Amino acid sequence: MTSTLPRVFTSDIKTHIGQQVRLLGWMHRLRAMGGVNFLLLRDRSGVAQAVLNADEVKVLEGMLAETVLELVGTVVASAQAPGGVELTQCSITVITPVTEATPFELYKKNIKATLPVFLDHAVVGHRALEKRAVLKLASGVMAGFRQTLNDHHFTEIQTPKLVGSATESGANVFPVEYFGRTAYLAQSPQFYKQIMVGVFERVFEVGPVFRAEPHATTRHINQYVSLDVEFGFIHDHFDVMSMATNVVRGILNHLAQHYQTELVLLEAEMPALPESIPWIYFPTAQQMLHDQFGVKDALGEPDLAPEHERILGEWAKKEYNSDFLFVTGYPMVKRPFYTHANPDDPKHSNSFDLLFRGLELITGGQRLHRYEDYVAAAQRFKYSLDAFAEYFEAFKYGMPPHGGFAIGMERFLTQLLCLDNVRQATLFPRDIHRLTP
Amino acid sequence: MTSTLPRVFTSDIKTHIGQQVRLLGWMHRLRAMGGVNFLLLRDRSGVAQAVLNADEVKVLEGMLAETVLELVGTVVASAQAPGGVELTQCSITVITPVTEATPFELYKKNIKATLPVFLDHAVVGHRALEKRAVLKLASGVMAGFRQTLNDHHFTEIQTPKLVGSATESGANVFPVEYFGRTAYLAQSPQFYKQIMVGVFERVFEVGPVFRAEPHATTRHINQYVSLDVEFGFIHDHFDVMSMATNVVRGILNHLAQHYQTELVLLEAEMPALPESIPWIYFPTAQQMLHDQFGVKDALGEPDLAPEHERILGEWAKKEYNSDFLFVTGYPMVKRPFYTHANPDDPKHSNSFDLLFRGLELITGGQRLHRYEDYVAAAQRFKYSLDAFAEYFEAFKYGMPPHGGFAIGMERFLTQLLCLDNVRQATLFPRDIHRLTP
Repeated sequence: MTSTLPRVFTSDIKTHIGQQVRLLGWMHRLRAMGGVNFLLLRDRSGVAQAVLNADEVKVLEGMLAETVLELVGTVVASAQAPGGVELTQCSITVITPVTEATPFELYKKNIKATLPVFLDHAVVGHRALEKRAVLKLASGVMAGFRQTLNDHHFTEIQTPKLVGSATESGANVFPVEYFGRTAYLAQSPQFYKQIMVGVFERVFEVGPVFRAEPHATTRHINQYVSLDVEFGFIHDHFDVMSMATNVVRGILNHLAQHYQTELVLLEAEMPALPESIPWIYFPTAQQMLHDQFGVKDALGEPDLAPEHERILGEWAKKEYNSDFLFVTGYPMVKRPFYTHANPDDPKHSNSFDLLFRGLELITGGQRLHRYEDYVAAAQRFKYSLDAFAEYFEAFKYGMPPHGGFAIGMERFLTQLLCLDNVRQATLFPRDIHRLTP
Repeated sequence: MTSTLPRVFTSDIKTHIGQQVRLLGWMHRLRAMGGVNFLLLRDRSGVAQAVLNADEVKVLEGMLAETVLELVGTVVASAQAPGGVELTQCSITVITPVTEATPFELYKKNIKATLPVFLDHAVVGHRALEKRAVLKLASGVMAGFRQTLNDHHFTEIQTPKLVGSATESGANVFPVEYFGRTAYLAQSPQFYKQIMVGVFERVFEVGPVFRAEPHATTRHINQYVSLDVEFGFIHDHFDVMSMATNVVRGILNHLAQHYQTELVLLEAEMPALPESIPWIYFPTAQQMLHDQFGVKDALGEPDLAPEHERILGEWAKKEYNSDFLFVTGYPMVKRPFYTHANPDDPKHSNSFDLLFRGLELITGGQRLHRYEDYVAAAQRFKYSLDAFAEYFEAFKYGMPPHGGFAIGMERFLTQLLCLDNVRQATLFPRDIHRLTP
């Protein structure tokens, strides 16, 4: 770097018209058009256009896209230029030259690469403006999540990802060789967040979880970021649903407030979120699917099929102008053993799913909080009490009625931005076929 | 829960003198003293004392510490009571009874349990006021870290924890059975954060890292929370040290501003942090250890021993009134292969350690940024280029000069609070002997 001028960002040059400025960034694109050369320079804030004459462009001879540059030039207003300003009288210094062509052209709005090819080269592909906007929104989702929970007096925790036994069920865990023993990667911070309700009453965690599900779908990856919440002194799952609503609203407001550039670039349609999200009881939902929507196989099943969720999502949109719908009271047989039953209808649970545009986004509910209920539930599910003894100890010593929920961050982004595949909302996805980059 | 009064927290009752209030929480301690009973009720905000007569205490017969309670009582000023207020005319409802004694008494300031016994029962032990204060400060360290980096326009990322090959070196990684292949747990987000400098210029991550080091020391655990930073367009490692100073100051200021209760409870002495942290070049430090402090084996070694770090820490405190000291220019042979050499002294690196009270807290430095330098370094270190090909691709396509650093969160807390063992600053530590709870 050669100039002593302070760095100016591309997003700020419009406030420097008539001045000489110094930019740092990447050669996004270089086009020669009838003796004039147009350079698009990309930095973390955006893209600026520079107009280079034959002399000025010479230093870029043989340099390909993504070359790192320092550019000193004068800002002038220009009606044709993107953003209404461009740079002229430019002097360029190459900081890091690039002499190999990128695997696909990064400046194009629709990158010409299949998803697998893109993911193979995501280390450079994420530099494309639309791709990085998605990942920027991911940081906004996390920030909005934390902000909302801090406002509600939650405490952040970080829990072990290596555990001695599977938390949810024996299947679908990754075994780890741990000093001559077998450990497992945590499928969720479920027990830990419950235990910490005994300490802080209200806790949240943002962290990776691992699911060894051996199927490749557009909705599943094997490591994802789980936004976890748990809190005590609730009446029932409706308190949990109310907090989940706060969190979803908090995230969306945070994005709308701080990430307009990215939302506009991605043409995101912000979802309809009423003051109070509508809810429907699971048996009622099944009955309605059968009676009103002619779904023949809706009744009697212990869960909703993706197609059922889609229909319910459309119904909520039409009936309540809501892109969100809570389904409550899932059958106990389909919920994990720590789920609290509905006292008035014990075959159904005090649990819920939140559908977002017809896809399950959040799962949550009220948990058991008495030690003896855990012992009974573990026996009913034929779990070894020994495996859980050290966790169940927390319930011996006074846990308040509590509940919580978890949001899959990548799935939230996928639904928000109407992406085709959850892999498009992940930095470097892990699945049955993919372990690099 | 029976009363319809809104909940009041123990920390707020002093503003309700003369009023009837409703508290929720845990029986922290119950003492009978000459016909009068003193109940300490703990909630997430603190502890309040209630004075119960023989009738009022009856409901607590057989109930042990940690019983979950609702208490409705009247707040009165009382010179002898902790905080100057207490509750009288109480009506108590048991929410969750406890009939088994806790493994050790939680109300005592110094818990009478060895560290292993405490850790075995940490699921309940963390409820002790001093223990939970440490974990509360952990949440403050993370919040202060993020706040500082957001203020400096960094973007948060979440990177894969399952990787196809070891990032730092072949040793000390945990193998994972991954769909018939072997994956490894990430030792650090090193390559990922560097790659993302090409996307966002400035990135940070808060997340777990895994080190399969098979030794049990008071300073090491096998999973810890790494606070990672990486950014581009630097001149050299002094820019990185300057950002590290901002981050340390930001965290300490955040704690001082928002966590006074915990800092006072733990009698934390805030460290001396001068406007600019002093630094010493590695060869100079060795010479000084030898000449000035009579350390016979100081010269010629490629690293500093813990004892050397301790002496340097004391020197910095005495000489500069600083609890922090940068040591720069560690020999290249002891630094990872991606380390940038000192152009004027190529056997030494543009890297640094930050000592905090004589213990290494942060490691960082400038990294290589040219593709050909990575190829050469990998060959010098006899690494397989194939294993890293997909990561090195990012360097083919233009990376600016960049650097970064990482802070071990638990170690930061350990040094800040002068704890004996890093396990005291961890929720549920993982080590060679411990995989639960």
